[in-house]
Order: sequence, then C-alpha cells, then structure tokens
Amino acid sequence: MTVLAASTDSATIEAQLAAARIAIAALPDVKRVVLTACGGSYAVMLPNEYLLSTRAVSFSAEAINAAEFTSRDARFIGPDNVVILCSHSGETPETVAAAKYARALGALTIALTHELASPLAQAAEHVIGYQHGTGKSESYVAPALLLRLVAGLLDDREGAALSGPIDAAVARLDELVGAARAAHADAANAYGFAYRDEPLIYTMAAGSNFGSAYSFAICLLQEMQWIHSAAIHAGEYFHGPFEVTDVRVPFIALVGLDGTRAVEERAVAFLTKHSERTLVIDAATFGLEVIDESVRGIAAHLVFNPVLRVYADALADHRGHPLSVRRYMWRMEY
Amino acid sequence: MTVLAASTDSATIEAQLAAARIAIAALPDVKRVVLTACGGSYAVMLPNEYLLSTRAVSFSAEAINAAEFTSRDARFIGPDNVVILCSHSGETPETVAAAKYARALGALTIALTHELASPLAQAAEHVIGYQHGTGKSESYVAPALLLRLVAGLLDDREGAALSGPIDAAVARLDELVGAARAAHADAANAYGFAYRDEPLIYTMAAGSNFGSAYSFAICLLQEMQWIHSAAIHAGEYFHGPFEVTDVRVPFIALVGLDGTRAVEERAVAFLTKHSERTLVIDAATFGLEVIDESVRGIAAHLVFNPVLRVYADALADHRGHPLSVRRYMWRMEY
Repeated sequence: MTVLAASTDSATIEAQLAAARIAIAALPDVKRVVLTACGGSYAVMLPNEYLLSTRAVSFSAEAINAAEFTSRDARFIGPDNVVILCSHSGETPETVAAAKYARALGALTIALTHELASPLAQAAEHVIGYQHGTGKSESYVAPALLLRLVAGLLDDREGAALSGPIDAAVARLDELVGAARAAHADAANAYGFAYRDEPLIYTMAAGSNFGSAYSFAICLLQEMQWIHSAAIHAGEYFHGPFEVTDVRVPFIALVGLDGTRAVEERAVAFLTKHSERTLVIDAATFGLEVIDESVRGIAAHLVFNPVLRVYADALADHRGHPLSVRRYMWRMEY
Repeated sequence: MTVLAASTDSATIEAQLAAARIAIAALPDVKRVVLTACGGSYAVMLPNEYLLSTRAVSFSAEAINAAEFTSRDARFIGPDNVVILCSHSGETPETVAAAKYARALGALTIALTHELASPLAQAAEHVIGYQHGTGKSESYVAPALLLRLVAGLLDDREGAALSGPIDAAVARLDELVGAARAAHADAANAYGFAYRDEPLIYTMAAGSNFGSAYSFAICLLQEMQWIHSAAIHAGEYFHGPFEVTDVRVPFIALVGLDGTRAVEERAVAFLTKHSERTLVIDAATFGLEVIDESVRGIAAHLVFNPVLRVYADALADHRGHPLSVRRYMWRMEY
C-alpha cells in the first residue's frame, strides 16, 4: 500500500500539460493514439477514446487494458503512436510495463499519475501529475487533465479548436461539481439506505459516459462494496441484458448530453417501465448551461464521477462497509 | 419474430466471400476497418478486432455497438473505411441503420446475415450468408466466415499470408467442434445440475476469447436464462472485480492460446485459489494441434462458442428454462 505524497500544485501541472502538448505537436506523424491503463484508470480513458474517435480524421484512437495492450504486441506500435497511460500510485505493474514497452518501440509516452516519483512517472517520457484527496481542485483531477490533454492534441494535430471551451469548462468544475454533489446529497442518502442490502446493482450508459458507469460498477460496487455489478452498454441492452430486467432488479442509469443520449434514453424508457428500482441520473440537471454548448456532452462525465461518488459514500455508510476496505487488494500477493 | 429461411449453401457462401474480398482488395486506400453489430453479433466481432488490431499496420480496426457507431457520427467515416456488419435476422434496426449510414458516406459495407432477403442484406453493398440450425456446418457459421474474411483482408491489404492456415483450420471445425462438445458433455451436464439455482455466474477471458465470454454472459446467461452475469476482462480483474471473488461466487473462466494467455492464467490462478466454484475451460484441450500453430490462438474462439453452448443447454435443461424463452424480446415493442 502506497502512502501518497501531497498533491501536485497547479502551476507544476500546467507546465507538465503544456510540455506534453508541445511534444505531441512536434511529432512528424501521428497515426494512432493509444489510451492504456487498468481498472479505474482505464475507465478514465473511455470518454477520451470517445472524443478522439469521434473527432479525429488523420489518426485513430483506442482505449485498452494495459495487460491486454502489452500482451497483444501489436505490429502498429511505433514512432507514429502517442501512448497515454494512467496509474494513481504510478506503481501498477501492467501500466508501467506498457509504458516501457511502448517507449522502447519509439512511441511518445505520456503518463498521468498522482505520484511524480513513481515507476510510471520514470518510465514514461512525459508525466502529468494530478491532484487527489483533501484540498484537491476538480480542475486538476485525472479525468479533467486527460480531457484537456486530448482536446489539445485534437487542436494541435487537426485544428479542432476544442481547448478553448474545454479549458473554460474545466476551470468551472469546482463550482459545478460542488453544486451537483449538494443537489444529490439527500437523494444519495435515501438511496444508500434503501439499497443497503442489495447483492447486485447494474449500471448503464453509452458514449462518453460509459466509463463512468464502468468505473462505478467495477471500482465502487464490486471492489469497494463487494456488490455484484456489471456496466451494461445502453446500445447493447436490448440485445440480451434487458431480459434480466425485473421489477426488483436495481439499475443506475446515466443519461448524458452527447450524441448517444437517444440511445441511453431509449434504454431508460424501457427500464423505468419495467422496473421500480431504477435510479436515473441525467446530466441535463448538472447546470452545464454555463459552459459552451459544443463541449457539454464530453464534459458531463467530469460531473458524473463525483456525483456517483456521493451515492457510493451513502451506500458505504448505510452498509457499514467503508470504501477503503479490501479483502485481497494490497493485502496479499497476486 | 422472424421465420428463418433454409441455410445458404456453401457454394453460394464461398462466392459471396470471394466477392467481398475482391471488393476490399480493389479499394484504393483502407485507413479503418469498423466491425459493428449488436449483442451476440457484436460479440462475434471482438476476436476479429483482436486479429486486425494485432496484425495490421496500415489501418486501424475497432469493434463498436451499432447504435453507438451511428450516434457518434464520427468524422472519419468515408471511402477509406471498410464497415463489416452482422445481424442474424438481418432485421436489427440499429445494424441496418449503421449499414445505410456508412454506405451513404462512401464506406465499403459488407454484411453477414442468415437472411439473404433481409433489410441488412439489401442495405449493405456486399452480403455473406451464413448457416445456422439443423444441418449447418461449423465451417459456415458467422464467426468462422468472419474470421476468414478478415484474414483475407489482412492478406490482400498487407500480405499477411493468414488465409492459408485460417481456411485450413476452419475446414476442420466440424471435426474439432464435434470432438470438443462430446468431451464436455458429461462435465456440462454435471455443471448444469450443480449450478441450476444460481442467481449469478460471472464469465472471464481476455484477448481473442473475450467475445466468447461476453456472448455467454449477455446472450446465454442474461438473455436466455435470466441469470445475472458480467464478462470480466482478465486484465481488469485485479483492478476491482476480484474483490467480489468469494468461495461461493461462480465464475466460468476461459483460457485461450493467443498472446493474452498469461493474463488469463494469472486471473485463473487467483480464482481457483479463492473460489471453489470456478469452471475453467482451456483451449489447450481442444485438439487444436492439428491446425497450424500460427493460427491456433485466433481459432480458439470458434471452439469456445459451441463448447459453451453445451453448458448453456445443460443449464437450461436442469433449470427447466428453455433457451428460447423470453419475457420481453420479440414479445412487445421496445
């Protein structure tokens, strides 16, 4: 178990982000952007894969688990790749290995981590620290910085003009997240009490919010609460998973603001008709009208994550099972 | 509910496959291959995304749910794309819409379907029929034909020389699958009896077999047995999901023969140490020594799928819940 150092200050982070952008802009050619990590850090990659894949023409983007990435040993890895990695402790062995592997093959490697002295920070060519814990700013957490990085990448490689509105949106996150968390406090507390004995809770989303649903399923529910879960893609729901829908089966469904909103809405309409136990969280209630309309969709996950955390905190409280408890992680070799 | 026509004969399929290959080979440029479908047909795409992404240098490949694909309206869609689609009935609205959308933007569209007169067959530029049901050959089911198609694509665009060993492997599938199914018959029957009352069974895999684990979770367990499930990526397991591992929680873990085997083995080693209820199915027992070593890994899913079906049949039998029963699908508008 790593004792985490104090958070990186914002000036250092801004300088690191700027240096990474300059390095990407200086590449003679970019054919692929690989976003690779494990677990919660992998989940953070997913909305960025969405943005890059949706907007980019001259390069492709993929999010991939770091162990899968290295094991595949894909032939395309090389100097025309940007490989972006993330690990909170910077010690995740699979992610460190992925950085070393990609860098040895000539890819530009950029790591996000909370630990600037970690093996990942040392393995990657560029590092961007992020804040976490007491005193952090929502503008300097990993998902916000990663979004700024890929928006900058799209600007610098393809003239996307996304950094202006994205950076402005990220700058308002403390205010937006604070208000959204406060607005959900009572509902979350009631939810935690009502669902405290559930053995299983599904999550659902599509598009740029699928990562938030996935993270809640595997990190908050499975890992931190030992509640069975699966993140169901809203577009897949009607092609199998919906048959487990029952008046008694709990779902947490996210409705975002990007191009896939209609896909999520269709699934939610069915869910709420056939189940009495669906919690719907709609980004339309997050007050995102204050940010540029063109980036509201891609910014929504930056609010979903901390709002979902309020529900996790409430579940943990009413279950008497702190989010910090583990039975295997950090307690044994594996 | 569609009444399915008799299966397409092998000569027709071979001609369709050859025509699709010629069309791909004739493209002036291929930058992206998109594999898009829904549910079980989406699952069939995943091992092919693995093969394409692992081997290709001059183009990228992605598998994506058809509703997500169309909703994203990604800027890269155009004449340098090959878009491969699949729908059993050929009537899946999202997949038909994806074919029309991609074709209108100039992409080369190739559809696999059991129904040659279906909307999907009409929407796509090329169609490849596949066999299903009584009298089918395992060499002419969708996963086998799709693998031959993408192997041909890799050969024709990049000189991969995969079609020889892949086609030879596919030609032996009736024999290989028959033997593997027979070898698992007793174990599957015992499994179906022992697990007949389970409310939840997880599946796990990585690499080219993740699609088989995903398909079993969402189609066989959730859809056809109303058993809760999630397909856990073996590389993600230690980063969250493994905390739900318990001596009582059942898992079905696949161990394949591709580059990710070590990732799967690591997860299985933990699982079998901490749970008494893990079913491990190892492709090393499938007799794949008779096919070329270079393609054993990518061919394994062609045996996993029908072997897993033996377990689903046994569960259905002992639960008194036929695989054909649905509560929503085909029974109402949604």
